[in-house]
Amino acid sequence: MAKVLTPRSENYAQWYNDLVIKAGLAENSAARGCMVIKPYGYAIWEKIQRILDDMFKETGHQNAYFPLFIPKSFFSREAEHVEGFAKECAVVTHYRLKNNPDGKGVVVDPDARLEEEYIVRPTSETIIWNTYRDWIQSYRDLPIKINQWANVVRWEMRTRLFLRTAEFLWQEGHTAHATREEAIEEAETMLKVYAQFAEQYMAMPVLKGYKTASERFAGAVETLTIEALMQDGKALQSGTSHFLGQNFARVFDVKFQTKEGKEEYVWATSWGVSTRLMGALIMSHSDDNGLVLPPKLAPIQVVIVPIYKKEEELKQIVEQAEKIATALKQLGILVKIDDDDKHKPGWKFAQYELQGVPVRLAIGPRDLQNGTVEVARRDTLSKEVVPVTGIEKRISELLDEIQNGIYQRALKFRDENTRKVDSYDEFKKVLDEKGGFILAHWDGTPETEEKIKQETKATIRCIPINNEKEEGKCMVTGKPSSQRVVFARAY
Amino acid sequence: MAKVLTPRSENYAQWYNDLVIKAGLAENSAARGCMVIKPYGYAIWEKIQRILDDMFKETGHQNAYFPLFIPKSFFSREAEHVEGFAKECAVVTHYRLKNNPDGKGVVVDPDARLEEEYIVRPTSETIIWNTYRDWIQSYRDLPIKINQWANVVRWEMRTRLFLRTAEFLWQEGHTAHATREEAIEEAETMLKVYAQFAEQYMAMPVLKGYKTASERFAGAVETLTIEALMQDGKALQSGTSHFLGQNFARVFDVKFQTKEGKEEYVWATSWGVSTRLMGALIMSHSDDNGLVLPPKLAPIQVVIVPIYKKEEELKQIVEQAEKIATALKQLGILVKIDDDDKHKPGWKFAQYELQGVPVRLAIGPRDLQNGTVEVARRDTLSKEVVPVTGIEKRISELLDEIQNGIYQRALKFRDENTRKVDSYDEFKKVLDEKGGFILAHWDGTPETEEKIKQETKATIRCIPINNEKEEGKCMVTGKPSSQRVVFARAY
Repeated sequence: MAKVLTPRSENYAQWYNDLVIKAGLAENSAARGCMVIKPYGYAIWEKIQRILDDMFKETGHQNAYFPLFIPKSFFSREAEHVEGFAKECAVVTHYRLKNNPDGKGVVVDPDARLEEEYIVRPTSETIIWNTYRDWIQSYRDLPIKINQWANVVRWEMRTRLFLRTAEFLWQEGHTAHATREEAIEEAETMLKVYAQFAEQYMAMPVLKGYKTASERFAGAVETLTIEALMQDGKALQSGTSHFLGQNFARVFDVKFQTKEGKEEYVWATSWGVSTRLMGALIMSHSDDNGLVLPPKLAPIQVVIVPIYKKEEELKQIVEQAEKIATALKQLGILVKIDDDDKHKPGWKFAQYELQGVPVRLAIGPRDLQNGTVEVARRDTLSKEVVPVTGIEKRISELLDEIQNGIYQRALKFRDENTRKVDSYDEFKKVLDEKGGFILAHWDGTPETEEKIKQETKATIRCIPINNEKEEGKCMVTGKPSSQRVVFARAY
Repeated sequence: MAKVLTPRSENYAQWYNDLVIKAGLAENSAARGCMVIKPYGYAIWEKIQRILDDMFKETGHQNAYFPLFIPKSFFSREAEHVEGFAKECAVVTHYRLKNNPDGKGVVVDPDARLEEEYIVRPTSETIIWNTYRDWIQSYRDLPIKINQWANVVRWEMRTRLFLRTAEFLWQEGHTAHATREEAIEEAETMLKVYAQFAEQYMAMPVLKGYKTASERFAGAVETLTIEALMQDGKALQSGTSHFLGQNFARVFDVKFQTKEGKEEYVWATSWGVSTRLMGALIMSHSDDNGLVLPPKLAPIQVVIVPIYKKEEELKQIVEQAEKIATALKQLGILVKIDDDDKHKPGWKFAQYELQGVPVRLAIGPRDLQNGTVEVARRDTLSKEVVPVTGIEKRISELLDEIQNGIYQRALKFRDENTRKVDSYDEFKKVLDEKGGFILAHWDGTPETEEKIKQETKATIRCIPINNEKEEGKCMVTGKPSSQRVVFARAY
């Protein structure tokens, strides 16, 4: 059968794009840089949303919804924030169209110009902190721990499905605290939630660490990040959690009265993950045959395909399939029987491989006679014939094995592609020949960081939390360094 | 205790606004006409979403996501659609800000003007049908049954929280079918789903019917609607389902090959409900003390308030409360124990009344001695003292009683406020003095409909499905009419 995807070894970027399109995850739209998330892709995103939402609620957060539009002036207030976000953005200037005087179509009505333009939110710190001013008077009103699921827009010039799109879906947490310590703890807790989600559900190992000053979120005092390694040796920032200090409180004048009756500015955090996680998921596990999904995020965990030549065989096979499906559903397993007669089994096998369904069961007439089922694993592409008796237990265990197996495989890959390097020449060589995470000494200055970025396109992905101390010399300047930091080229 | 809400009898509109604000449901924002949905309001919306989403999936729909931005030219294609939607809308004309040359803040960069402006979606038929063109070739690709949860923007000049806002949240279903009959059946099915949701979950009786031509969705062949009656005698359109014929398929050139090998345009439906349902919910059941929520949509169904004077009493009471809470949770009941010591019981009682928590339990030292609990119903404001033994069963039944009770109350109100009227004078009199649904004869012309609207502000809410045939004369023109239609002033 002809390969439907460009092989990864040939062109990784093309493989990625092929996969997203062919597996029915997403596609480009008529609105420049904005994607359509197709039903199968959206079903995965819904699982991600549901699990994260439960984790946010368990850690004491509530959902709310803030406006899509932000008055332009709000962005002028936080100097770094405007540099980081308000420059490339969608600007709403008018509120009406009218018929074209030439009779063709519609034109913008020049009489309907807004007094103050609105920015389509690229992130919501400004409008949320403008709102919090009215919600917070005293320490009794704190903490506020709110999350929002929303669409945001950043006018990216070069876009790639899921990884970088003008519009994307995300969640943004925005919390308000009475003390610096509590806000820092919140930022750290949410980073842990993200890391736990990445590892336990996405089966994707991540490094937890701090961003350097130049890689920080615009307006943050400290940015925490989880960084994952993709199969092509590039890093992907998968979630960030920011300690915002009192920056936004100052700018939007959000003060509270302490227990002791003093007036103080409120401490803030924000944190978010986006549909970019879909890209990370794809590039962590998938292969030249298509998507490989961790069972915990698969919309279909098990598919059953009947194999038959004569119509009368089908009925009995489907009966058997339904028995198995019922037993699996009782264990909470998401199962689909594909008895559609429009396609041959071979086509179906390829299709479910492409879509990353973790386990495929095939049942033919001989299986019926023998009381067996063919079980195929998507992750290893291995097959075995197993007795139908007790199969639900076997499948349930297999799903756990797969979940764990793909995590271990990704972890092994990351470990094998994490290298200590001590000279700049070696750094460049490893970067070009192998990629991956490179642990190297750096003198701590933004200048050296920038020089490395300009010369090699590698950035400091993070300074790991609880980083091991090690005396050394900056690979570029030779100045003293007390720890290695993590470099990589990144998405 | 002072009333926190303007009484309904004094000023219904003010009562509504007070309630939305004071119960913590929503508030206005810095973006004109856009609201902030606060955590408690959003928790109710989340329940609405979850239940509807399950109902959509049970009826064979999948979720997906389409872009926020729609190229302006798309709106020129469907003539009625542009009249209906593209006139009052948010127009994105630029994609960049720059520092103000005078040094203050940021301004729109005139060099970053878009070649073609984008409209922030007021509804997504156009961009979705432009996408479906690529998805549909043959009858094998049909039906497509997709729903989207999204924000939309319509530049309303006079806004009211939930009822009419510039930005609102909604779901929009967009389906594609091979035959006219199948599309009509889909539109009817989804109207039934909406009616079932309104009645079984919102406890809100609705009329199901067809809109007249002048009240139809812009671009629809037929619009089905559910209409509810609010406490002030005004109607509220609560959900609509449209049979779009082949209008959008023609405009976006979406054809398919039939089984017989012919080429035909695809048949379409769309259907939606929005955060407007929150307004309908509030105005169906609530009273001068605050919100009254049907238990099935209440984020907290039961609150337990300890009553104590001495600190040592509290511990025992809370232990008892926790036992009850555990038993209730096992029955799937959402329960909260409020042992917060910042507020007195009286304050808490008023607060939970304001927020519409269906059942409130109070436990004092005497209850501990007697093995009793005080149970208060929000809907009737009645109280009873019941034995703690078996209380979970009693509460479970009570929640059903309340759910049914408020539905019956709303139904009785609607029945008492649905009147047959046979002359135009009587029509105007009833409309001014009593409001409600008025069943009257109409000659079927848009001219008469418009005259009535201009003179009385009443519109035809719907022509009920399976409407009773009755010979009569139009109350305005005296021309023959074969059925009564439903008039009302409406939100």
